[in-house]
Amino acid sequence: MSIYTDLAMELREMNPKLGGIEEKDENDGEIAIKRINILSDEASAKIGKAKGRYISLDAPDLVMRPLDLFEHMSACLKKELNALIGRDASECTVLVVGLGNHRVTPDSLGPEVVGRIHVTRHIKEYMPEAFEYPVASVCAIAPGVLGLTGVETMDVVKGVVERTKPDIIIAIDSLASRRAARISTTIQLSDAGISPGSGVGNKRADLSKESLGVPVIAIGVPLVVYASTISQDTIGLIADETGLHNDEEHLKELAEQVISKHMGEMIVTPKDIDAIVTDMAGIVSDAINSALFGERLSDVRNLIA
Amino acid sequence: MSIYTDLAMELREMNPKLGGIEEKDENDGEIAIKRINILSDEASAKIGKAKGRYISLDAPDLVMRPLDLFEHMSACLKKELNALIGRDASECTVLVVGLGNHRVTPDSLGPEVVGRIHVTRHIKEYMPEAFEYPVASVCAIAPGVLGLTGVETMDVVKGVVERTKPDIIIAIDSLASRRAARISTTIQLSDAGISPGSGVGNKRADLSKESLGVPVIAIGVPLVVYASTISQDTIGLIADETGLHNDEEHLKELAEQVISKHMGEMIVTPKDIDAIVTDMAGIVSDAINSALFGERLSDVRNLIA
Amino acid sequence: MSIYTDLAMELREMNPKLGGIEEKDENDGEIAIKRINILSDEASAKIGKAKGRYISLDAPDLVMRPLDLFEHMSACLKKELNALIGRDASECTVLVVGLGNHRVTPDSLGPEVVGRIHVTRHIKEYMPEAFEYPVASVCAIAPGVLGLTGVETMDVVKGVVERTKPDIIIAIDSLASRRAARISTTIQLSDAGISPGSGVGNKRADLSKESLGVPVIAIGVPLVVYASTISQDTIGLIADETGLHNDEEHLKELAEQVISKHMGEMIVTPKDIDAIVTDMAGIVSDAINSALFGERLSDVRNLIA
Amino acid sequence: MSIYTDLAMELREMNPKLGGIEEKDENDGEIAIKRINILSDEASAKIGKAKGRYISLDAPDLVMRPLDLFEHMSACLKKELNALIGRDASECTVLVVGLGNHRVTPDSLGPEVVGRIHVTRHIKEYMPEAFEYPVASVCAIAPGVLGLTGVETMDVVKGVVERTKPDIIIAIDSLASRRAARISTTIQLSDAGISPGSGVGNKRADLSKESLGVPVIAIGVPLVVYASTISQDTIGLIADETGLHNDEEHLKELAEQVISKHMGEMIVTPKDIDAIVTDMAGIVSDAINSALFGERLSDVRNLIA
Repeated sequence: MSIYTDLAMELREMNPKLGGIEEKDENDGEIAIKRINILSDEASAKIGKAKGRYISLDAPDLVMRPLDLFEHMSACLKKELNALIGRDASECTVLVVGLGNHRVTPDSLGPEVVGRIHVTRHIKEYMPEAFEYPVASVCAIAPGVLGLTGVETMDVVKGVVERTKPDIIIAIDSLASRRAARISTTIQLSDAGISPGSGVGNKRADLSKESLGVPVIAIGVPLVVYASTISQDTIGLIADETGLHNDEEHLKELAEQVISKHMGEMIVTPKDIDAIVTDMAGIVSDAINSALFGERLSDVRNLIA
Repeated sequence: MSIYTDLAMELREMNPKLGGIEEKDENDGEIAIKRINILSDEASAKIGKAKGRYISLDAPDLVMRPLDLFEHMSACLKKELNALIGRDASECTVLVVGLGNHRVTPDSLGPEVVGRIHVTRHIKEYMPEAFEYPVASVCAIAPGVLGLTGVETMDVVKGVVERTKPDIIIAIDSLASRRAARISTTIQLSDAGISPGSGVGNKRADLSKESLGVPVIAIGVPLVVYASTISQDTIGLIADETGLHNDEEHLKELAEQVISKHMGEMIVTPKDIDAIVTDMAGIVSDAINSALFGERLSDVRNLIA
Repeated sequence: MSIYTDLAMELREMNPKLGGIEEKDENDGEIAIKRINILSDEASAKIGKAKGRYISLDAPDLVMRPLDLFEHMSACLKKELNALIGRDASECTVLVVGLGNHRVTPDSLGPEVVGRIHVTRHIKEYMPEAFEYPVASVCAIAPGVLGLTGVETMDVVKGVVERTKPDIIIAIDSLASRRAARISTTIQLSDAGISPGSGVGNKRADLSKESLGVPVIAIGVPLVVYASTISQDTIGLIADETGLHNDEEHLKELAEQVISKHMGEMIVTPKDIDAIVTDMAGIVSDAINSALFGERLSDVRNLIA
Repeated sequence: MSIYTDLAMELREMNPKLGGIEEKDENDGEIAIKRINILSDEASAKIGKAKGRYISLDAPDLVMRPLDLFEHMSACLKKELNALIGRDASECTVLVVGLGNHRVTPDSLGPEVVGRIHVTRHIKEYMPEAFEYPVASVCAIAPGVLGLTGVETMDVVKGVVERTKPDIIIAIDSLASRRAARISTTIQLSDAGISPGSGVGNKRADLSKESLGVPVIAIGVPLVVYASTISQDTIGLIADETGLHNDEEHLKELAEQVISKHMGEMIVTPKDIDAIVTDMAGIVSDAINSALFGERLSDVRNLIA
């Protein structure tokens, strides 16, 4: 039981001198972009994330929900998405997978995003004449979570991949962060695949290029902090401040006591998490729709409404 | 454009003398059970339903929502389900499929039922020691609708069937009825398969023993009447009463005028459809859980809570 | 039992030659504006609407949900609202009342709009220094419906009016239309007050300047058609077409038969009513927020987020 | 910033030797009942709760959601409610007030309960002949929260009280607990009034016999723990274990650092809070309906359905 985070940027902070990792920072005044590239197997094993590129967009002012910044964040996410797609989306079949449980608010981001994706695959198949221009063939599923379905997410996705044969998969999930301040302000992109349930449950078979045979772009948004992380951080800070580090084993025992006594499966979340999930689902789905349809976005939207 | 219904009992009413059909009625004072068996290909083609058994449970007093009758209806449905399953459920792997669109209230019955099914397959797989008794291996998915996913329901289900290898599939869907009075009072069971989207959309590839290689038990609840059915019925009644039958062509034209002018894709539904869907999802899910887990129901419920 | 509508424009259509009514039409190519002014008590009694101004905005293309038209409709509604308010909103206390039942989708427009109004009254009261500029003092309630609360809407509103002393009340409600085509395309404004529950229930004590001592601006959106209206219209059309008008009494009897047999409390609504309510709540709440906060809208939004 | 709880039983634990308080424990093997009576003004001021009776029902096994225990808890709550009402409910007018914000899951208990109360007042008023037996006149409102309405809860309730003249008010709210383990296992009743917003917001004018002139029975369910409470508890435990109590000021500073850095307005809540709120709303509303309607419960339910 220790500090848990799904964010590569936070894992890097906790392992600042680890080799085998490249990083690069940009900042446009509103959004800080951090690019982390996990290159070696060793670094991957140490840091607990698959090899590949991780891009985090961080806009602390999002916490105040200014509409302009929503649009800016969405535009920035679109640009990064198009770079990861790396080709003309209008020639691609794209499967969007919304991971998570729509009955658990902080875990419902994936299904919420899927509900806002402009889906075109069935129209291209059954009414190809509806589009007079090249347009991405987009489909989208929310496979549910193991605890509700009894079926591994991977098993649902694999079946759909075999039948729809996508060129690219975009998977969306809620993440766990180390710091509550990141909730609602950060979005992480990656080409390294994603573990369903890592946000608020157990690790399961990864969705990745290795397992599915198709490039997987993961978009994750931190929406919870494990309560155990808060306790652990509190103890760490006290150890630092009181010079009790020589007593580290004793402190770890204490941490376990507090955690088992108070928190079981508790999560830390803002009171307005319902509104935050709605806002973030808007930012992410706008970015995906724009990245996939480009200048044809409003034509597609009007057609499928 | 004509009168549309998914209910075998209503189709039979409209074709009372058609051969190749067996029927049988029971009534316990509260619930009328009608058993219709479509035997011949000819009858099937004429009536527009696949060959097989259709059992409708009809309890007009359900419209007043008495709790006792909810329980009675659920117990009756359980009994019929167990008869259709035809073997000891505790030895089976069962896949429950909730058809329909969770974002459209009258079409959300299937996903609502799925959310209340006690799912055990993952526990049997990962913690087999948790059950000290024989118990059904149950999994449950809500595959979404073509218009939201861009993927045929059949394609999602087939992938899951290949991986979970169920012995039986139970599929739940909202249906369209000819008469508004049936909404919230009738449940139809069948072993003849089901067409996703027949309730409030277009016909698609059937889920059936033929297409999936596994017996499919369909449970449907009428929750809408097409507005066009109301107009058609109004015109039919007037034709009967006014002796205008010699002018049938003219009346059909009139019907089409009214329908195209007023109704497009309109449905007729009770004002309290949100509450009705909740109630019917409770009746159907209680029946399925009881049919699958029998005397072990409360043990299973407590284990998975 | 006859054709029922809450829309002044439809009532006018049905009584085209009635005196004591002024009307005026405008059209900007996308939105048709009809201004009806019921002037005499006699016209009011005949048409069944209180004396006063009724303004309907009608944009048939809204049915296809183009984003541009959403914004155009919202801007047009804002302009009409500001004209009805007739003074500088930043000097006013405004009470927004969302009528209807949040548990019944087509009746949930009012509560949905209330949830999107930028509320400032408590901030002006407890942290007046937060606003460095003149700003409307806005409060908003969703009083519920008689069937769920057991309390007349009027009784809840009156108590709040006594304590908050608003200069203006803006009341939002779902309406019933005669034609399904109006659902999602029309918005009606009025300065003649509003009857809670007229949309999908019984008439109750009106919210109006007479009853509350404060000007009431009503905003209504047609979201249902009574099923009985469809039957009635079908019969009317047939009577017209078949020349059966000499047999009018008989037709009325027929209508009553069809209606009582088939429809009870049924409503006609589009399948995608859940999405339509969300869209219309967005258009109406954007218009109200813009009308009340003008150029300060984004400042207010950022402050209260 | 310190440990915060709305539960009298937890406040008593933190002040075990304080005078002016009576307490009594019962336990039937499944439910532990603790009765705390705050008698003196001094004890009230010290402990931060109004004078009066506080009864907590605590059933740790509820965490596993066994249906039998739900019914047992509901029956136990009904009995305590009837004792606090202290008279024949069928002769009373009762106003049920659901405090909290229906858009924030852990704060939505009050509105959820209100939606399940059998409301009879309007029927007794407009169709008195519907009841052939004495029956409580019940009405129910969810006044919303200050941050969404801009109106003090007290101002909404006072207006409704003036018009409905209830004999008893029953107010339901979400509470904050010190320990996460209490979430979903504890219910607190009181005759000492309730502060809207104490659960997840600021204190406001109390609803109480003093302020409203009518006895107020409060029912509260702990559904959140403030994240600051967790940090504070962690630090307290470490102080105990490490003998750092001589350094108490320093530890308080540390606590404030952790809290301000990590948590702002964060709450700790179980992942399955959506399901817990539904379950607890069922237990509480069943108890209220049973307490108010007694043997007539099913008659009333059938009548108003």
